[in-house]
Amino acid sequence: MSAPRATYTKNEVLKYHSQSCGKIESKSKVPLKNFKDLTLAYTPGVAEVCNEIKDHPEKISEFTNRGNTVAVITDGTAVLGLGDIGPEAGLPVMEGKCVLFKELAGVDAVPILLNTKDPNEIIQTIKVIAPSFGGINLEDISAPRCFEIETVLKQDLNIPVFHDDQWGTAIVTLAGLLNALKLTGKKISEIKVAVSGAGAGGIACSKFYKDAGVKEIILCDSKGIVSTARADLNDYKKSLAVEQEGTLADAMKGADVFLGLSRGNIVSGEMVKAMAADPIIFACANPTPEIAPELAKSAGAKIIATGRSDYPNQINNVLGFPAIFRGAFDAKATEITQEMMRAAAKAIAFCTPDSELAEDNIITNPLDKNVMKAEAEAVADAYRKYKN
Amino acid sequence: MSAPRATYTKNEVLKYHSQSCGKIESKSKVPLKNFKDLTLAYTPGVAEVCNEIKDHPEKISEFTNRGNTVAVITDGTAVLGLGDIGPEAGLPVMEGKCVLFKELAGVDAVPILLNTKDPNEIIQTIKVIAPSFGGINLEDISAPRCFEIETVLKQDLNIPVFHDDQWGTAIVTLAGLLNALKLTGKKISEIKVAVSGAGAGGIACSKFYKDAGVKEIILCDSKGIVSTARADLNDYKKSLAVEQEGTLADAMKGADVFLGLSRGNIVSGEMVKAMAADPIIFACANPTPEIAPELAKSAGAKIIATGRSDYPNQINNVLGFPAIFRGAFDAKATEITQEMMRAAAKAIAFCTPDSELAEDNIITNPLDKNVMKAEAEAVADAYRKYKN
Repeated sequence: MSAPRATYTKNEVLKYHSQSCGKIESKSKVPLKNFKDLTLAYTPGVAEVCNEIKDHPEKISEFTNRGNTVAVITDGTAVLGLGDIGPEAGLPVMEGKCVLFKELAGVDAVPILLNTKDPNEIIQTIKVIAPSFGGINLEDISAPRCFEIETVLKQDLNIPVFHDDQWGTAIVTLAGLLNALKLTGKKISEIKVAVSGAGAGGIACSKFYKDAGVKEIILCDSKGIVSTARADLNDYKKSLAVEQEGTLADAMKGADVFLGLSRGNIVSGEMVKAMAADPIIFACANPTPEIAPELAKSAGAKIIATGRSDYPNQINNVLGFPAIFRGAFDAKATEITQEMMRAAAKAIAFCTPDSELAEDNIITNPLDKNVMKAEAEAVADAYRKYKN
Repeated sequence: MSAPRATYTKNEVLKYHSQSCGKIESKSKVPLKNFKDLTLAYTPGVAEVCNEIKDHPEKISEFTNRGNTVAVITDGTAVLGLGDIGPEAGLPVMEGKCVLFKELAGVDAVPILLNTKDPNEIIQTIKVIAPSFGGINLEDISAPRCFEIETVLKQDLNIPVFHDDQWGTAIVTLAGLLNALKLTGKKISEIKVAVSGAGAGGIACSKFYKDAGVKEIILCDSKGIVSTARADLNDYKKSLAVEQEGTLADAMKGADVFLGLSRGNIVSGEMVKAMAADPIIFACANPTPEIAPELAKSAGAKIIATGRSDYPNQINNVLGFPAIFRGAFDAKATEITQEMMRAAAKAIAFCTPDSELAEDNIITNPLDKNVMKAEAEAVADAYRKYKN
């Protein structure tokens, strides 16, 4: 195992956040030095721009910052691994995402905290405020409500809507998986994947992997395999149910890949030993992975990735959302399609060249500006192809 | 008359707005240079801050930027003098306000455009997104809907709510009036004021002036004097109705002050001549004043102010809102009280010392940083006194 890559103390984190009272601010892009500037930025001059947009609505992107602005919206029901801590306690995560949007991809972002958990009210509120933004990033909204909310908003709004906990996770884990398969010499169409966790991430990954060519996926929730024999499944789980019944351990028998998006310490060394040759373990539960990397390794895991920054192979959504919105905005996309997301996954995977690919280096570093650039271009290209 | 102070062309305005695609952006307040920063700003470190806010909700102002952030919210129904041009066409005004909030008073601001005109839906939407902000600046929402919306939000939210078209106008015009009265040697308790326009500004000014000591106010709408004899008045007009009936010309007979918040070219030289000695004319309709300053002057007006930047005595809300929210945020105010608004008006008036006071200099320049500082301090002090 490599040495830890980045550790921190609670005090360091608190100080980082309190030194400037939070992490984001608004900023003027125009000069305001004299009275002339005031008449241009505000009354009476600004009326000329208002009339211009009134007469030519499409010019809003030319004369305002809307086309580069994404709302990071949460109801605080599924914040990190902390659960339903409320929107206010979730704000540091939203501000964090806004920092990453801007610093990594030049996307302006605004946190929006919702004082409701009712899906219809969430949908209605977002529809009412949608004219303010060029895109909507849904964040940390618990399953299964998140599925309905995203589906309706994607259908009713003509701007990109993206639930990061679903698709960001799907995109970044697929990127890692593509490289892990390359290293182990396995074909995506021939692997068996056991997924632990049937929340936003687990459901979306299962669907996305199928679209990417995986034929055998066994999804598990806290009660075991999501099986057609069960009577307690919501529609989203039902659509992924298999005929097999049993526990997570049963699902993992003979599997090539374990994808954990659930909770800590639920996978044993025995369960890893029962997998196919050269097993790939993505134990993404945060902060405690489904199985400790050291234990997985000693049980024979070939490749181990986690969500943690203090182990190699960190599978983190930050590799996805900034460049995905960058690409969507650059292409003036009105939606984020499956093709754009698949292009993002491939671009991320491709940023680790074969010469650097190794068991402890299956995925690139999000602070490498080249990744964001390549990914954004791939996303924009995919949209342009989709439209033509 | 002094020479015009700032003129502009349509092309200049459009270029000012298009050179950077709009006027505002988001910005990171923290470093994001390396992997360590990433673990502090985002997962997993940020979870420590989330838990801290969950356990101590009041610490949200210490660890996030919420306490310094105001939403500038509009439905686009009464944008400048342009009317109901829709929220998108109003965005340049909202971005302009955000620039002024930040540049003049260090307040972070976010434009929110509402895709509804229904007062209940507006109220409900703002209540749902309110946890995102430290304050709410309502903007360019038409009367009489704006009154109900503000009243309910002030009652139901525990953060400052301020409808600038009402109270910003009332505060800044009162500041000008206080200085104009000083120059003309008239007492506020003895003047008669004719107000033209019974929209957001006219109604609020009438109420605010009464609170400030004006005893005789005759409010007029497009049909003439708002009289108790009329059957067509909404509740807001009713509360200000007088027994007199007649036209705006009748209202202005013998008046010391004309306050115009209505539309261009509706006041004649004759009407000014019929006013009391040394008449004060605030013709604030934009872009065309109720009476041209030149005409008012030749008809005997002693002091003339307009909303325009190309004449002296510009009465502009920009003198109010940035410092009012600055003061409210500095005092951690949960509301904006009448006392705070009156303190703001007095502070603005006081920024033009007696030695500089003149017929063409009754109000200070908003780009003078001392105004904003003095006003914010007065507002914060007023809140602290109100709470004790």
